[in-house]
Amino acid sequence: MKTTTTQLLVNGDRLNQSIATLARIGHLPNGGVKRIAYNSKDIKARDLIQQWMKEIQMEVRIDAAGNIIGRYFGKFPEVPALATGSHIDTVPCGGHYDGAYGVLAGLEVVRVLHENQIRLNRSLEVIVFTDEEGSMIGSKAISGRVVKDPEYYRRPDGTDIQTCLARIGGNWNLITTAQRSSREIAAFVELHVEQGPVLESMHKQIGVVEGIVGQRRFNITVKGSANHAGTTPMQMRCDALVAASQVVLAVNQIGNTPGQQVATVGKMQVQPNAANVVPGWVEMSLDIRDLSDLHIDRLLEQLRTHLEEIAVATNTQIRLSPCLHNEPALAASYIQQAIARSCENLNLSFTYLPSRASHDAQELAQITDMGMIFVPSQMGVSHDATEYTSPEQCTQGANVLLQTLIELDSYTTNKHLLIAKLSNNSN
Amino acid sequence: MKTTTTQLLVNGDRLNQSIATLARIGHLPNGGVKRIAYNSKDIKARDLIQQWMKEIQMEVRIDAAGNIIGRYFGKFPEVPALATGSHIDTVPCGGHYDGAYGVLAGLEVVRVLHENQIRLNRSLEVIVFTDEEGSMIGSKAISGRVVKDPEYYRRPDGTDIQTCLARIGGNWNLITTAQRSSREIAAFVELHVEQGPVLESMHKQIGVVEGIVGQRRFNITVKGSANHAGTTPMQMRCDALVAASQVVLAVNQIGNTPGQQVATVGKMQVQPNAANVVPGWVEMSLDIRDLSDLHIDRLLEQLRTHLEEIAVATNTQIRLSPCLHNEPALAASYIQQAIARSCENLNLSFTYLPSRASHDAQELAQITDMGMIFVPSQMGVSHDATEYTSPEQCTQGANVLLQTLIELDSYTTNKHLLIAKLSNNSN
Repeated sequence: MKTTTTQLLVNGDRLNQSIATLARIGHLPNGGVKRIAYNSKDIKARDLIQQWMKEIQMEVRIDAAGNIIGRYFGKFPEVPALATGSHIDTVPCGGHYDGAYGVLAGLEVVRVLHENQIRLNRSLEVIVFTDEEGSMIGSKAISGRVVKDPEYYRRPDGTDIQTCLARIGGNWNLITTAQRSSREIAAFVELHVEQGPVLESMHKQIGVVEGIVGQRRFNITVKGSANHAGTTPMQMRCDALVAASQVVLAVNQIGNTPGQQVATVGKMQVQPNAANVVPGWVEMSLDIRDLSDLHIDRLLEQLRTHLEEIAVATNTQIRLSPCLHNEPALAASYIQQAIARSCENLNLSFTYLPSRASHDAQELAQITDMGMIFVPSQMGVSHDATEYTSPEQCTQGANVLLQTLIELDSYTTNKHLLIAKLSNNSN
Repeated sequence: MKTTTTQLLVNGDRLNQSIATLARIGHLPNGGVKRIAYNSKDIKARDLIQQWMKEIQMEVRIDAAGNIIGRYFGKFPEVPALATGSHIDTVPCGGHYDGAYGVLAGLEVVRVLHENQIRLNRSLEVIVFTDEEGSMIGSKAISGRVVKDPEYYRRPDGTDIQTCLARIGGNWNLITTAQRSSREIAAFVELHVEQGPVLESMHKQIGVVEGIVGQRRFNITVKGSANHAGTTPMQMRCDALVAASQVVLAVNQIGNTPGQQVATVGKMQVQPNAANVVPGWVEMSLDIRDLSDLHIDRLLEQLRTHLEEIAVATNTQIRLSPCLHNEPALAASYIQQAIARSCENLNLSFTYLPSRASHDAQELAQITDMGMIFVPSQMGVSHDATEYTSPEQCTQGANVLLQTLIELDSYTTNKHLLIAKLSNNSN
């Protein structure tokens, strides 16, 4: 008896067992996982994933950027494939779920299809992207946005990128060959833990990601006059820290205006930083993120006006220098709808939300239609040994991924191509 | 022809030449002076001062704390003396005037008396205090407030205090013998550069110091929650830096309420201090100074209330831990009046003001009546090679010191003693 695809569910036990098995590679005494890109644990984990892919008749290849690309062939292998995936490298003390969950859920989707002898129309790729926690070189190679200078990718321990990629089967000299397009990948869907507290606090089971926020980062400097904290009367001071404190509150106010933006001063250095000296210099970071670049522009305009007022009032000089500008990557609305519909069919509660962290999906959005599914993170914690998403929640997310991919497979987005192929075959 | 004491003036050229001569010992290429207590330059300068004292028939002794005490005998050597003086050690890159000026002006006063063959009723001491810029061990030994544990005085380079004092003729084992009382010193007057901008900005030639402010220092900690600056929505944050910024502004507000107090956050450390992490912990200093301990108490009470409100509003914990409490040292009002009267007689403009920096005079105030005279510091700068007070201003201050000491000598403050002596002698 063949199961119809709309009734298909993942095998939750198998998925959660795979998560536990993978977490043993690079496990730390505190329960965390250390699997830094290119290290021996990362390589061991990559080998295991490839072995698991091959066990279910996936065709496995490593591209020049070291990405593992497992392909489960569809009925029409020539039309653009669907793709899912994430990463299995971790931060120095990461958890079990960040990245690994998305890869293993993709693998579980194929396992279910395979054991039910189901072939989709399109081929389905599960991609393990190289070094997401560091350079994101894997997904950037696929989007064609790798920095040309190999020095940019040299590791903190001094190892060059040529050596790193060679270790995992990649090849720096051929890195441009890793670039892909919508002619190969019709849509990319990444499943990931939220790494934030929104779903948990809203008691929602699934997050339909509207896009990955754009991020701007600035360096703000405040120049006052360092003076003796005893002998300098209050009204004669140009206290850089008093001005900087007003800047922090102005940034916080911008963050708290209506909208979904976040704005943060995370870093601050005071000079000369002595209890008996009025601060003469403060340097700090500004990080501001939103789904709309235009909205960020408007907020920054407000902030600039406010900073000018602070500078005049405090008799200081305030400078704002840009140091990072990542544009937002919006999720395709038809993929958001497919995810939402899958949730409804599976009777799972959901909400729409932006992803305010970076993901490989933001690079894939450069070349094809992109969507992301979030499951809750306990207490919003990630990049820590205590990162946790329950087995039940992991299963729910994987079911949404499965149903979303099945629904996308039935679409005729790349209409002409697919129709041509379908009609060719039905001849 | 003998000059009467009320017409006496110092020799400004000689005074300013002495300042220049002393500044050559330990001079730096940038025009500054490095004469760290106990180093070879300090010792060379101490030798020169002693030589100069002896040239004008002063009796010179070194007490156990290494203080140089030069005594110019009065007509009644048994009654409590008048004393003046300051220090000749400097910060690592100091100027020509901080400390040295007060010592050399005291010496100039005696030079004038000596060349005019004038003896005051009381003996006049010129004291060079040991290590004012570091431990203030010299004046603290005189007030009897030396810390018992010699480890407290170990130098940054590891040298113990026993060795240091031995180098300059002192003796740690006998340090308590350096303590003195009002039975020996009837009044102490210190002349010093202001080290602040008040006199210059008010266009006043002389400052009559009301006292040396009390100083309290606190460590303030703010505990929030470190979180991802991307994934944590604004309303779910406990941002320690947002709270700390409000604390800085609350401190600044306290400083700017009516009164002569100053209040400063000079030092701040943010944790984890990364652009992409909401700050979870901030530690900062609070320094607050005023002539009235009661006024400081009232300001701190206001501040504590304000900090509690900030903690509630920002969902953080704020702690205020005391780490220093120096009580104010008030100048005797009759000495302030004598200084003011001297200014009037010399046709010099003056204002009353607190000293918001530490001076040896604050220790002397523990054992006797104290007064201080300030001359302007250009731009308020001190502890720097660019520290500057003009020769004319230096001369003016020394004339005020001379006239003040002469006026104090005519007082019968320690009435019974002096009268007894005077009547004894007139027998």
